[in-house]
Amino acid sequence: MARTGRRPGTGGTREKILRAARRQFARGGYEGATIRGIAAAARVDPKLVLHYFESKEGVFSAAMDFPFDPAAAIPALLEPGLDGLGERLARFFIEVWDSPGGARAHAIVRSMVSSDSAAALMRDFVSREILARLAQALKLDRPQVRASLAASQLVGIAMLRYVVKVEPLASASPERVAAWIGPTLQRYFTDPSATRSSQGQP
Amino acid sequence: MARTGRRPGTGGTREKILRAARRQFARGGYEGATIRGIAAAARVDPKLVLHYFESKEGVFSAAMDFPFDPAAAIPALLEPGLDGLGERLARFFIEVWDSPGGARAHAIVRSMVSSDSAAALMRDFVSREILARLAQALKLDRPQVRASLAASQLVGIAMLRYVVKVEPLASASPERVAAWIGPTLQRYFTDPSATRSSQGQP
Repeated sequence: MARTGRRPGTGGTREKILRAARRQFARGGYEGATIRGIAAAARVDPKLVLHYFESKEGVFSAAMDFPFDPAAAIPALLEPGLDGLGERLARFFIEVWDSPGGARAHAIVRSMVSSDSAAALMRDFVSREILARLAQALKLDRPQVRASLAASQLVGIAMLRYVVKVEPLASASPERVAAWIGPTLQRYFTDPSATRSSQGQP
Repeated sequence: MARTGRRPGTGGTREKILRAARRQFARGGYEGATIRGIAAAARVDPKLVLHYFESKEGVFSAAMDFPFDPAAAIPALLEPGLDGLGERLARFFIEVWDSPGGARAHAIVRSMVSSDSAAALMRDFVSREILARLAQALKLDRPQVRASLAASQLVGIAMLRYVVKVEPLASASPERVAAWIGPTLQRYFTDPSATRSSQGQP
C-alpha cells in the first residue's frame, strides 16, 4: 500500500504531477489520460512521472487517494488459487475499510454518488485494474459478470456496515462478516450455475 | 405505491403536514417522531394526519419521497411463502429502481451518503419497516443478520447498476440480474449455514 501514500522529501514536484494528473483524469477519463499528457501538463519529463508512480495506475491511485494498490493487492489475493478466494477477498476488503484507508474509501464513495463524472472515472479504474484482474483468473463462463456480482456484494457491505451503519452488520467482527459474505463471493467466482439467467438455463 | 405519491386536490394542508413531518423526523429521528408531535407542529388535528397518511410510516414515506410503501410491499412479497422469496424480492427491488421511483431511490442514496443524520433517519425506517418485517418471517437463527445480509446484496446491486453503472450489470435485463442475485438472497434467508461464523461452526 506504500505506493499510494505520501512520500516525504519529494518536494513540490510530486504534488505538481498529482495536480496535473487530477486535471488530466477529469478531462480524459481513466482510459484517455496518459503518462505523457500528465507529464506535459506538469511540465516535467515523463520519466519523472514513472520514477515517482511507476505506472498510470500508480499515478491514479495516488492522485485519487485510493486506499490500496490493485497492482499489488489483487495478484496477492489470487496467488493461492481460486480455493477460498471469496473469503480472502472479503477479509482484505473489510480490513481496508476498518483501517485508516476506510476514510479514503468513504470519501471515494461520497464523490461517486454525488458526481457522475467522478463515478465514471472510478468505474473505469476499478473495472480495468480490479475487476478485469479478477475476471482474468476465473476459469468459467462470463468472468466479467462474476467479478461484478462479487463487487456488488462487497460494495453493499461497505454501504450498510460503514456508511449507513445498519446493525448487526456495523458492529460484527471483520472475521464474522467475511465468513458471512465469503461463500457468496466464492459462489459468484466458481459456481458454474451462478451466471445462469434462470433455473437450469444458461 | 399510491400512498406515497402526491394526491391532487388536498390543498395546502397536506404539504403543511409534510413540512412539519420533515422537521420532526430530522429532530427526533424515525423512532422519536410521533403523529401527535407532527400534528402539533403543523397545527392540525392528529386525526387529519392519519386521514392523509394512515400511519407514522405513511407520513415518513410521503415526507421522504420513499419509492414504495413497505407496509404493502413486504407482506405481498412474503405472502407466497419463503420459497422463491430471494428472486421475488430481487425482482421487486430492481423494478422499483428501473421505474420512475428509481430517481427517488437515487436521491435517497445520495442524501444518506452525504449526511450522517439522513443516513441514521433512513436506516431506522428501513430497519424497522423493511428488515424487521422480513426478519419476522424467517424461520431460522439470527433473522436480523439474514435480512441485513440480503439488504447488503440489494444495495450493492443498486450502487453498481444504477449509481456507478458498472458493466455488464448496468445493461443486463432486470430478469437476468434478479436470477443472478436471487439465489444469494435465498441463501441468506433460508440456508441454515448462512450465519455460521466460520466453516462448520455456528
